[in-house]
Amino acid sequence: MNAPTDLTHLVPEINQREVPSALIDALKARFGERCSTALVVREQHGRDESSFQAPPPAAVVFAESTDDVSAAVRLASQYSVPVIPFGVGSSLEGHLLAVQGGISIDVSRMNQVLAIDADDLTVTVQPGVTRKQLNEAVKSTGLFFPIDPGADASIGGMSATRASGTNAVRYGTMRENVLGLEVVTASGDVIRTGTRARKSSAGYDLTRLMVGSEGTLGVITEVTVKLYPLPEAISAAVCSFPSIEAAVRTTIQVIQLGVPIARVELIDHNTVRMVNAHSKLKLREEPMLLMEFHGSPTGVKEQAELVQEIASEHGGNAFEWASTPEERTRLWTARHNAYFAAVQSKPGCRVISTDTCVPISNLADCLLDSVKEADESGIPYFLVGHVGDGNFHFGYLLDPELPQERITAEKLNHQLVSRALALEGTCTGEHGVGLHKMDFLVTEAGAGAVEMMRTIKRALDPKNIMNPGKIFSL
Amino acid sequence: MNAPTDLTHLVPEINQREVPSALIDALKARFGERCSTALVVREQHGRDESSFQAPPPAAVVFAESTDDVSAAVRLASQYSVPVIPFGVGSSLEGHLLAVQGGISIDVSRMNQVLAIDADDLTVTVQPGVTRKQLNEAVKSTGLFFPIDPGADASIGGMSATRASGTNAVRYGTMRENVLGLEVVTASGDVIRTGTRARKSSAGYDLTRLMVGSEGTLGVITEVTVKLYPLPEAISAAVCSFPSIEAAVRTTIQVIQLGVPIARVELIDHNTVRMVNAHSKLKLREEPMLLMEFHGSPTGVKEQAELVQEIASEHGGNAFEWASTPEERTRLWTARHNAYFAAVQSKPGCRVISTDTCVPISNLADCLLDSVKEADESGIPYFLVGHVGDGNFHFGYLLDPELPQERITAEKLNHQLVSRALALEGTCTGEHGVGLHKMDFLVTEAGAGAVEMMRTIKRALDPKNIMNPGKIFSL
Repeated sequence: MNAPTDLTHLVPEINQREVPSALIDALKARFGERCSTALVVREQHGRDESSFQAPPPAAVVFAESTDDVSAAVRLASQYSVPVIPFGVGSSLEGHLLAVQGGISIDVSRMNQVLAIDADDLTVTVQPGVTRKQLNEAVKSTGLFFPIDPGADASIGGMSATRASGTNAVRYGTMRENVLGLEVVTASGDVIRTGTRARKSSAGYDLTRLMVGSEGTLGVITEVTVKLYPLPEAISAAVCSFPSIEAAVRTTIQVIQLGVPIARVELIDHNTVRMVNAHSKLKLREEPMLLMEFHGSPTGVKEQAELVQEIASEHGGNAFEWASTPEERTRLWTARHNAYFAAVQSKPGCRVISTDTCVPISNLADCLLDSVKEADESGIPYFLVGHVGDGNFHFGYLLDPELPQERITAEKLNHQLVSRALALEGTCTGEHGVGLHKMDFLVTEAGAGAVEMMRTIKRALDPKNIMNPGKIFSL
Repeated sequence: MNAPTDLTHLVPEINQREVPSALIDALKARFGERCSTALVVREQHGRDESSFQAPPPAAVVFAESTDDVSAAVRLASQYSVPVIPFGVGSSLEGHLLAVQGGISIDVSRMNQVLAIDADDLTVTVQPGVTRKQLNEAVKSTGLFFPIDPGADASIGGMSATRASGTNAVRYGTMRENVLGLEVVTASGDVIRTGTRARKSSAGYDLTRLMVGSEGTLGVITEVTVKLYPLPEAISAAVCSFPSIEAAVRTTIQVIQLGVPIARVELIDHNTVRMVNAHSKLKLREEPMLLMEFHGSPTGVKEQAELVQEIASEHGGNAFEWASTPEERTRLWTARHNAYFAAVQSKPGCRVISTDTCVPISNLADCLLDSVKEADESGIPYFLVGHVGDGNFHFGYLLDPELPQERITAEKLNHQLVSRALALEGTCTGEHGVGLHKMDFLVTEAGAGAVEMMRTIKRALDPKNIMNPGKIFSL
């Protein structure tokens, strides 16, 4: 894994396979107007939030049922043509790009909440349901779905990338919260994995194999996830720190003491400035932690007091509380808009987002040196982190007209990932490998483990039609 | 899946492959006295806590390092001879039986705690380390490893069977608590899965694929698991109920309210009687819940008061507290000895243990009808349950001289599993499939999902030498 010196390895390997017109005809015959070859539709499905580019898919099928997905995959398999599942298009790693050609299967119309089993704290949804829609649907039960990657992503996409976000420190990631799946395999067959039981030792964990497989092993057509009772009390707080290090040291201590904090987000001073400008806020433009506590009133009080004590030991000040839902929503909306606030600060820019995650005791070492490097590079960036997990994101803001900026940003990312791996971390905490981190994956997991992944892929998808060219080359 | 009418399908399919003397010679050359062919040693490694029987393995290799395991597997692979990993022999499902012949690799001497990373709440151990040994080793850090299947099982074996136990309702199972593994593959190669980071989206979740694979995909040679801060306050309570239903209804309500109870174990009145006799206790011989609460002093108090209130609404009485470590240990030791207490109550008996797990709202339906059937059968049994997970165990106590008892017990198990599956549950919550639940797995997961498991097995173990004949026939 060498540091990039030019753009060659930053351009995804394009190896378009032929899409026979006979397949398009068959798809149109089966799906009518729900199979589109209009350029604008194909282009909209051939990109995501990443900075990669590739020719669009040859067609887009709008699936409305598992049968639709199965039929589309069977036809694609018959012609050995790639299939790329599409939810809402919020991937950051190029998962949706048709680097080997093929067709896009848009599941956004599969957006039904199929079963709310409040007594078991589970809900079963179609893959196109978004996390906000899901929480709207279960609101009246007094339960909620905590996984929150920021974007209003689809539950299918969140499963496919093993997403997490701000609440993971308390509630885990999609890995811990998906109980079962319905999946259309590479042959177009439909299988079910898992049950609604909370635990099982019944054979290989196909659920966990599919969660995080980025569409390369099958198309997810149904997801059963855990729900949690809405906490009796919720309290959010903002605390400013004299330095990023002080904020990080505070976080490390909070986690090591086992405080069941629900959210602890780092936002650096640059990003606070961008957020203030974008969301019309007056947050102190210093490194800050945005925290949330869930529990009983006394439990929340205990947690908050302990954290406040730890924070002040590290020079944390201006511990501001937001106890009303309105204030909380305002703060978290601001946090979720950090990405857009940053983009707005440099009009026309593209973003390269990093996603390293390290053991909590190595967080300061990993983060602080990277901040220094980023500052020295002169490239504007935003920095936010789910620091309770040891996970954080630099977003380098690039002028697409200046290739050198891209190279510099990729070098920064390369240095950051190398540092994270040396500190026993991972190159991607929650975004997935996609097109961007294939080399890093080999360094992280080792050639033997990646070869095991390839072996599984070859066995389950012998024609290599399921979102090929992602995670590893094949 | 038909109910058993005779013993034929209860005898595991024995299909011994030839073990060439050349392999034994090669093993003796490599391992010297650490390769034993003594009948007593082979017999001790050819059985477990299940009631199955098969001829013993041809040899037992006592591995002391990953290199040892790798060398043994390479030699076995060269001669296409099965390999069966052995920890402490506490499997309940026949995992350790050499139904296709082969050699046993005993990893109990690989019992080093390799790294305690208290600052990250992780520990890395060799597979032969037992859970008690692990907790002893981390005691001084103020952290603990919560997974507690009752038996002092090896961490390698607990990983291989996706074990859990009494604490899973609060802390999860091995599925949630294993961060990474070192594994010797079917070719003898060594791979690593996962990192010490709390979360990752880096490729297929090989860790979760190996956890629960029952030795059929590789031999686990290193395990990194999560640790948790010892709770500031721990309190245990016993509560007796007028009926099993009342105890179960109490549990369901506690879970649905989201009380973060650490343990909630059901013990029926028969079993309480056995436990009293065995552990010299004077527990009221009524259905009872044995509970434990972890948290801050006020948090524990809040939980306990709420649960006590719910219990009394269901006729729960005699809420007895055990707040000193000694009292708690006495109670939990009694609980853990329930199995032995039961065996003692019918000298010379063999036990068939059930392991169904259902969504919590279906627990009463699943459990109560099965109690009725067990009572009507006249077969003595014990009944304990990790009811907070919807998981419980009947242990039918059989006279090995009376085949009819075995048939009756298998019929009871069959009715129970059928009921659990109809209630969206699983045939095994924590023991694994092994030899006993292969038919149930097909009914539960479906032929397509099991075929996907077989496809993965064929791809990763083309010679079918890794603990063959377990989970599914191949």
